[in-house]
Amino acid sequence: MGQLRRARGRAGEARLRILGLDPGLGTTGWGLIEAEGNRLTHIGNGQIKTDTAAALPRRLSALADQLEALITDNQPAGAAVEEVFVNKNPQSTLKLGQARGVVLMCAARAGIDVGEYSPALVKKAVVGTGGAEKAQVHAMVTRLLPGVKIAGPDAADALAVAITHAHHLASRRRMA
Amino acid sequence: MGQLRRARGRAGEARLRILGLDPGLGTTGWGLIEAEGNRLTHIGNGQIKTDTAAALPRRLSALADQLEALITDNQPAGAAVEEVFVNKNPQSTLKLGQARGVVLMCAARAGIDVGEYSPALVKKAVVGTGGAEKAQVHAMVTRLLPGVKIAGPDAADALAVAITHAHHLASRRRMA
Repeated sequence: MGQLRRARGRAGEARLRILGLDPGLGTTGWGLIEAEGNRLTHIGNGQIKTDTAAALPRRLSALADQLEALITDNQPAGAAVEEVFVNKNPQSTLKLGQARGVVLMCAARAGIDVGEYSPALVKKAVVGTGGAEKAQVHAMVTRLLPGVKIAGPDAADALAVAITHAHHLASRRRMA
Repeated sequence: MGQLRRARGRAGEARLRILGLDPGLGTTGWGLIEAEGNRLTHIGNGQIKTDTAAALPRRLSALADQLEALITDNQPAGAAVEEVFVNKNPQSTLKLGQARGVVLMCAARAGIDVGEYSPALVKKAVVGTGGAEKAQVHAMVTRLLPGVKIAGPDAADALAVAITHAHHLASRRRMA
Protein backbone atom coordinates (compact mmCIF):
# COMPACT_ATOMS: atom_id res chain seq x y z
CA MET A 1 0.00 0.00 0.00
CA GLY A 2 2.97 2.35 0.36
CA GLN A 3 5.92 3.31 2.48
CA LEU A 4 5.66 4.25 6.13
CA ARG A 5 8.25 6.04 8.16
CA ARG A 6 7.98 6.67 11.88
CA ALA A 7 8.42 10.29 12.91
CA ARG A 8 11.09 11.01 15.50
CA GLY A 9 9.42 12.03 18.74
CA ARG A 10 10.23 15.33 20.42
CA ALA A 11 9.01 15.47 24.00
CA GLY A 12 6.64 18.22 25.12
CA GLU A 13 5.55 19.52 21.70
CA ALA A 14 2.02 19.23 20.35
CA ARG A 15 2.11 17.31 17.13
CA LEU A 16 -0.87 16.46 15.05
CA ARG A 17 -1.02 13.52 12.70
CA ILE A 18 -3.06 14.27 9.59
CA LEU A 19 -4.29 11.86 6.93
CA GLY A 20 -4.92 13.33 3.48
CA LEU A 21 -7.10 11.28 1.17
CA ASP A 22 -7.78 11.38 -2.56
CA PRO A 23 -10.68 8.94 -3.02
CA GLY A 24 -11.20 6.95 -6.20
CA LEU A 25 -12.70 3.56 -7.05
CA GLY A 26 -9.62 2.29 -8.90
CA THR A 27 -7.02 4.15 -6.83
CA THR A 28 -7.36 6.01 -3.54
CA GLY A 29 -4.30 8.07 -2.68
CA TRP A 30 -3.32 8.61 0.95
CA GLY A 31 -0.68 10.73 2.62
CA LEU A 32 0.15 10.90 6.30
CA ILE A 33 2.05 13.85 7.80
CA GLU A 34 2.73 15.25 11.24
CA ALA A 35 2.37 18.95 11.93
CA GLU A 36 4.19 20.59 14.82
CA GLY A 37 3.46 24.27 14.58
CA ASN A 38 4.72 25.18 11.11
CA ARG A 39 7.01 22.17 10.88
CA LEU A 40 5.74 19.32 8.73
CA THR A 41 7.07 15.76 8.77
CA HIS A 42 6.24 13.09 6.24
CA ILE A 43 5.09 9.82 7.82
CA GLY A 44 3.95 7.81 4.83
CA ASN A 45 2.03 7.80 1.58
CA GLY A 46 0.61 5.26 -0.79
CA GLN A 47 -2.17 4.25 -3.14
CA ILE A 48 -4.92 1.78 -2.33
CA LYS A 49 -5.96 -0.08 -5.47
CA THR A 50 -9.01 -2.25 -6.01
CA ASP A 51 -9.36 -5.16 -8.41
CA THR A 52 -11.01 -3.88 -11.61
CA ALA A 53 -12.20 -7.45 -12.34
CA ALA A 54 -14.20 -7.66 -9.08
CA ALA A 55 -17.85 -6.61 -8.65
CA LEU A 56 -18.44 -3.04 -7.46
CA PRO A 57 -19.62 -3.93 -3.91
CA ARG A 58 -16.49 -6.10 -3.41
CA ARG A 59 -14.23 -3.30 -4.64
CA LEU A 60 -15.84 -0.90 -2.19
CA SER A 61 -15.48 -3.29 0.75
CA ALA A 62 -11.82 -3.95 -0.20
CA LEU A 63 -11.24 -0.18 -0.17
CA ALA A 64 -12.89 0.09 3.26
CA ASP A 65 -10.85 -2.83 4.66
CA GLN A 66 -7.53 -1.33 3.56
CA LEU A 67 -8.38 2.17 4.69
CA GLU A 68 -9.57 0.98 8.10
CA ALA A 69 -6.32 -0.97 8.57
CA LEU A 70 -4.35 2.17 7.68
CA ILE A 71 -6.31 4.26 10.18
CA THR A 72 -5.99 1.63 12.93
CA ASP A 73 -2.23 1.32 12.40
CA ASN A 74 -1.56 5.06 12.31
CA GLN A 75 -4.24 6.70 14.46
CA PRO A 76 -4.45 10.06 12.70
CA ALA A 77 -6.03 12.91 14.68
CA GLY A 78 -7.60 14.48 11.60
CA ALA A 79 -8.29 13.79 7.93
CA ALA A 80 -8.84 15.91 4.84
CA VAL A 81 -10.20 15.51 1.31
CA GLU A 82 -10.69 17.79 -1.66
CA GLU A 83 -14.17 19.05 -2.39
CA VAL A 84 -15.54 17.60 -5.60
CA PHE A 85 -16.74 19.87 -8.33
CA VAL A 86 -18.99 19.02 -11.20
CA ASN A 87 -17.41 16.41 -13.41
CA LYS A 88 -17.97 16.40 -17.16
CA ASN A 89 -18.91 12.72 -17.15
CA PRO A 90 -21.85 11.81 -14.86
CA GLN A 91 -20.86 8.11 -14.77
CA SER A 92 -17.40 9.14 -13.48
CA THR A 93 -19.07 11.36 -10.88
CA LEU A 94 -21.16 8.41 -9.70
CA LYS A 95 -18.10 6.12 -9.47
CA LEU A 96 -16.09 8.74 -7.62
CA GLY A 97 -19.04 9.40 -5.32
CA GLN A 98 -19.31 5.72 -4.39
CA ALA A 99 -15.63 5.52 -3.42
CA ARG A 100 -15.76 8.88 -1.68
CA GLY A 101 -18.77 7.83 0.40
CA VAL A 102 -16.91 4.76 1.66
CA VAL A 103 -13.78 6.81 2.45
CA LEU A 104 -15.71 9.48 4.41
CA MET A 105 -17.67 6.81 6.26
CA CYS A 106 -14.46 5.01 7.35
CA ALA A 107 -13.07 8.27 8.76
CA ALA A 108 -16.30 9.04 10.62
CA ARG A 109 -16.47 5.54 12.08
CA ALA A 110 -12.93 5.93 13.39
CA GLY A 111 -14.03 9.15 15.10
CA ILE A 112 -11.90 11.38 12.86
CA ASP A 113 -13.17 14.74 11.64
CA VAL A 114 -12.71 15.34 7.93
CA GLY A 115 -11.78 18.76 6.55
CA GLU A 116 -12.89 19.54 2.99
CA TYR A 117 -10.94 21.99 0.83
CA SER A 118 -11.55 23.27 -2.68
CA PRO A 119 -8.88 22.39 -5.29
CA ALA A 120 -8.05 26.13 -5.58
CA LEU A 121 -7.48 26.36 -1.81
CA VAL A 122 -5.17 23.32 -1.90
CA LYS A 123 -3.12 24.93 -4.69
CA LYS A 124 -2.99 28.21 -2.78
CA ALA A 125 -1.90 26.49 0.45
CA VAL A 126 0.80 24.40 -1.21
CA VAL A 127 2.07 26.61 -4.06
CA GLY A 128 0.83 30.05 -3.07
CA THR A 129 -1.54 30.60 -5.97
CA GLY A 130 -4.97 29.09 -6.65
CA GLY A 131 -4.24 28.75 -10.35
CA ALA A 132 -1.13 26.56 -10.03
CA GLU A 133 -0.59 23.53 -12.29
CA LYS A 134 -0.70 19.96 -10.90
CA ALA A 135 3.02 19.54 -11.61
CA GLN A 136 3.84 22.62 -9.50
CA VAL A 137 1.75 21.24 -6.63
CA HIS A 138 3.57 17.90 -6.74
CA ALA A 139 6.96 19.62 -6.91
CA MET A 140 6.10 21.75 -3.86
CA VAL A 141 4.90 18.70 -1.91
CA THR A 142 8.36 17.20 -2.42
CA ARG A 143 9.95 20.48 -1.31
CA LEU A 144 7.75 20.83 1.81
CA LEU A 145 8.30 17.24 2.91
CA PRO A 146 12.05 16.67 2.50
CA GLY A 147 13.04 13.12 1.69
CA VAL A 148 9.53 12.06 0.66
CA LYS A 149 9.20 9.39 -2.01
CA ILE A 150 5.77 9.76 -3.55
CA ALA A 151 3.91 6.59 -4.55
CA GLY A 152 2.03 8.22 -7.45
CA PRO A 153 -0.12 11.19 -8.48
CA ASP A 154 -3.04 10.26 -6.20
CA ALA A 155 -0.71 9.96 -3.21
CA ALA A 156 0.76 13.37 -4.12
CA ASP A 157 -2.75 14.88 -4.17
CA ALA A 158 -3.46 13.27 -0.81
CA LEU A 159 -0.27 14.75 0.70
CA ALA A 160 -1.22 18.16 -0.74
CA VAL A 161 -4.61 18.16 0.96
CA ALA A 162 -3.00 16.95 4.22
CA ILE A 163 -0.59 19.92 4.05
CA THR A 164 -3.55 22.24 3.39
CA HIS A 165 -5.31 20.89 6.47
CA ALA A 166 -2.16 21.42 8.58
CA HIS A 167 -1.92 25.07 7.41
CA HIS A 168 -5.59 25.59 8.13
CA LEU A 169 -5.28 24.19 11.66
CA ALA A 170 -2.15 26.28 12.32
CA SER A 171 -3.83 29.51 11.20
CA ARG A 172 -6.93 28.66 13.20
CA ARG A 173 -4.70 28.24 16.26
CA ARG A 174 -3.09 31.62 15.60
CA MET A 175 -6.51 33.25 15.35
CA ALA A 176 -7.64 31.72 18.62
CA MET B 1 -36.76 2.41 10.81
CA GLY B 2 -39.89 0.59 9.74
CA GLN B 3 -42.14 -2.34 10.44
CA LEU B 4 -40.98 -5.92 10.55
CA ARG B 5 -43.15 -8.96 10.30
CA ARG B 6 -41.90 -12.51 10.73
CA ALA B 7 -42.79 -14.87 7.92
CA ARG B 8 -44.61 -18.04 8.86
CA GLY B 9 -42.31 -20.97 8.35
CA ARG B 10 -43.29 -23.89 6.12
CA ALA B 11 -41.08 -26.92 6.62
CA GLY B 12 -39.18 -28.43 3.70
CA GLU B 13 -39.54 -25.57 1.20
CA ALA B 14 -36.62 -23.49 -0.07
CA ARG B 15 -37.26 -19.89 0.74
CA LEU B 16 -34.98 -17.05 -0.05
CA ARG B 17 -34.92 -13.81 1.88
CA ILE B 18 -34.19 -10.82 -0.34
CA LEU B 19 -33.36 -7.27 0.69
CA GLY B 20 -34.21 -4.56 -1.83
CA LEU B 21 -32.46 -1.22 -1.32
CA ASP B 22 -33.04 2.26 -2.69
CA PRO B 23 -29.97 4.20 -1.56
CA GLY B 24 -30.05 7.91 -0.81
CA LEU B 25 -28.17 10.25 1.50
CA GLY B 26 -31.30 11.71 3.10
CA THR B 27 -33.47 8.59 2.85
CA THR B 28 -32.53 5.00 2.00
CA GLY B 29 -35.53 2.80 1.37
CA TRP B 30 -35.42 -0.89 2.24
CA GLY B 31 -37.78 -3.76 1.62
CA LEU B 32 -37.44 -7.33 2.79
CA ILE B 33 -39.36 -10.17 1.16
CA GLU B 34 -39.23 -13.95 1.10
CA ALA B 35 -39.51 -15.84 -2.16
CA GLU B 36 -40.65 -19.45 -2.21
CA GLY B 37 -40.89 -20.42 -5.88
CA ASN B 38 -43.35 -17.88 -7.25
CA ARG B 39 -44.84 -17.10 -3.86
CA LEU B 40 -43.70 -13.83 -2.32
CA THR B 41 -44.13 -12.86 1.33
CA HIS B 42 -43.55 -9.43 2.76
CA ILE B 43 -41.26 -9.41 5.80
CA GLY B 44 -40.69 -5.72 6.39
CA ASN B 45 -39.95 -2.36 4.86
CA GLY B 46 -38.83 1.03 6.02
CA GLN B 47 -36.79 4.13 5.37
CA ILE B 48 -33.42 4.91 6.95
CA LYS B 49 -33.07 8.65 7.41
CA THR B 50 -29.94 10.62 8.24
CA ASP B 51 -29.73 13.93 10.07
CA THR B 52 -29.52 16.73 7.48
CA ALA B 53 -27.85 18.94 10.11
CA ALA B 54 -24.93 16.51 10.58
CA ALA B 55 -21.68 16.57 8.59
CA LEU B 56 -21.55 14.31 5.52
CA PRO B 57 -19.12 11.69 6.97
CA ARG B 58 -21.38 11.32 10.08
CA ARG B 59 -24.46 10.92 7.91
CA LEU B 60 -22.74 8.18 5.92
CA SER B 61 -21.61 6.32 9.04
CA ALA B 62 -25.12 6.61 10.53
CA LEU B 63 -26.49 5.09 7.31
CA ALA B 64 -23.94 2.24 7.53
CA ASP B 65 -24.72 1.58 11.21
CA GLN B 66 -28.46 1.29 10.60
CA LEU B 67 -28.10 -0.82 7.48
CA GLU B 68 -25.66 -3.21 9.16
CA ALA B 69 -28.06 -3.64 12.09
CA LEU B 70 -30.87 -4.41 9.63
CA ILE B 71 -28.74 -7.01 7.83
CA THR B 72 -27.56 -8.61 11.08
CA ASP B 73 -31.12 -8.85 12.41
CA ASN B 74 -32.62 -10.26 9.23
CA GLN B 75 -29.85 -12.21 7.49
CA PRO B 76 -30.97 -11.79 3.88
CA ALA B 77 -29.53 -14.29 1.38
CA GLY B 78 -29.41 -11.72 -1.41
CA ALA B 79 -29.79 -8.01 -2.06
CA ALA B 80 -30.75 -5.85 -5.02
CA VAL B 81 -30.52 -2.21 -6.09
CA GLU B 82 -31.52 -0.24 -9.16
CA GLU B 83 -28.83 0.75 -11.61
CA VAL B 84 -28.28 4.48 -11.66
CA PHE B 85 -28.56 6.41 -14.87
CA VAL B 86 -27.21 9.81 -15.64
CA ASN B 87 -28.78 12.40 -13.39
CA LYS B 88 -29.46 15.92 -14.64
CA ASN B 89 -27.76 17.47 -11.61
CA PRO B 90 -24.12 16.37 -11.08
CA GLN B 91 -24.17 17.42 -7.39
CA SER B 92 -27.16 15.10 -6.85
CA THR B 93 -25.30 12.32 -8.66
CA LEU B 94 -22.33 12.79 -6.32
CA LYS B 95 -24.56 12.74 -3.22
CA LEU B 96 -26.40 9.66 -4.42
CA GLY B 97 -23.10 8.00 -5.29
CA GLN B 98 -21.73 8.54 -1.79
CA ALA B 99 -24.77 6.93 -0.17
CA ARG B 100 -24.85 4.14 -2.76
CA GLY B 101 -21.17 3.33 -2.16
CA VAL B 102 -21.81 2.88 1.56
CA VAL B 103 -24.89 0.72 0.93
CA LEU B 104 -23.10 -1.59 -1.54
CA MET B 105 -20.09 -1.84 0.78
CA CYS B 106 -22.30 -2.89 3.72
CA ALA B 107 -23.87 -5.67 1.63
CA ALA B 108 -20.47 -6.90 0.42
CA ARG B 109 -19.07 -6.92 3.96
CA ALA B 110 -22.00 -9.03 5.11
CA GLY B 111 -21.17 -11.50 2.32
CA ILE B 112 -24.36 -10.77 0.37
CA ASP B 113 -24.33 -10.61 -3.43
CA VAL B 114 -26.07 -7.58 -4.86
CA GLY B 115 -28.14 -7.78 -8.05
CA GLU B 116 -28.42 -4.60 -10.11
CA TYR B 117 -31.45 -3.96 -12.33
CA SER B 118 -32.30 -1.12 -14.67
CA PRO B 119 -35.37 0.98 -13.77
CA ALA B 120 -37.07 -0.30 -16.95
CA LEU B 121 -36.47 -3.92 -15.92
CA VAL B 122 -37.94 -3.25 -12.46
CA LYS B 123 -41.06 -1.75 -14.05
CA LYS B 124 -41.33 -4.70 -16.42
CA ALA B 125 -40.93 -7.25 -13.61
CA VAL B 126 -43.48 -5.58 -11.33
CA VAL B 127 -46.05 -4.08 -13.72
CA GLY B 128 -45.36 -5.95 -16.95
CA THR B 129 -44.23 -2.97 -19.02
CA GLY B 130 -40.93 -1.07 -18.92
CA GLY B 131 -42.69 2.25 -19.44
CA ALA B 132 -44.97 2.06 -16.38
CA GLU B 133 -45.48 5.07 -14.10
CA LYS B 134 -44.12 5.14 -10.53
CA ALA B 135 -47.69 5.11 -9.16
CA GLN B 136 -48.46 1.91 -11.08
CA VAL B 137 -45.31 0.27 -9.70
CA HIS B 138 -46.29 1.16 -6.14
CA ALA B 139 -49.86 -0.05 -6.66
CA MET B 140 -48.57 -3.39 -8.00
CA VAL B 141 -46.17 -3.78 -5.06
CA THR B 142 -49.19 -3.54 -2.74
CA ARG B 143 -51.03 -6.08 -4.88
CA LEU B 144 -48.11 -8.55 -5.02
CA LEU B 145 -47.44 -8.36 -1.27
CA PRO B 146 -50.91 -8.63 0.31
CA GLY B 147 -51.27 -6.81 3.61
CA VAL B 148 -48.13 -4.72 3.14
CA LYS B 149 -48.06 -1.27 4.70
CA ILE B 150 -45.46 0.75 2.82
CA ALA B 151 -43.35 3.23 4.81
CA GLY B 152 -42.91 5.66 1.90
CA PRO B 153 -41.93 6.00 -1.76
CA ASP B 154 -38.30 4.92 -1.20
CA ALA B 155 -39.43 1.82 0.66
CA ALA B 156 -41.85 1.07 -2.21
CA ASP B 157 -38.97 1.34 -4.72
CA ALA B 158 -36.88 -0.96 -2.53
CA LEU B 159 -39.69 -3.57 -2.41
CA ALA B 160 -40.04 -3.29 -6.21
CA VAL B 161 -36.38 -4.08 -6.82
CA ALA B 162 -36.55 -6.95 -4.28
CA ILE B 163 -39.50 -8.41 -6.24
CA THR B 164 -37.52 -8.01 -9.48
CA HIS B 165 -34.60 -9.91 -7.94
CA ALA B 166 -36.96 -12.71 -6.80
CA HIS B 167 -38.37 -13.03 -10.35
CA HIS B 168 -34.88 -13.06 -11.79
CA LEU B 169 -33.73 -15.82 -9.42
CA ALA B 170 -36.88 -17.87 -10.11
CA SER B 171 -36.40 -17.68 -13.89
CA ARG B 172 -32.71 -18.49 -13.53
CA ARG B 173 -33.71 -21.59 -11.57
CA ARG B 174 -36.18 -22.59 -14.30
CA MET B 175 -33.45 -22.18 -16.94
CA ALA B 176 -31.02 -24.36 -14.94
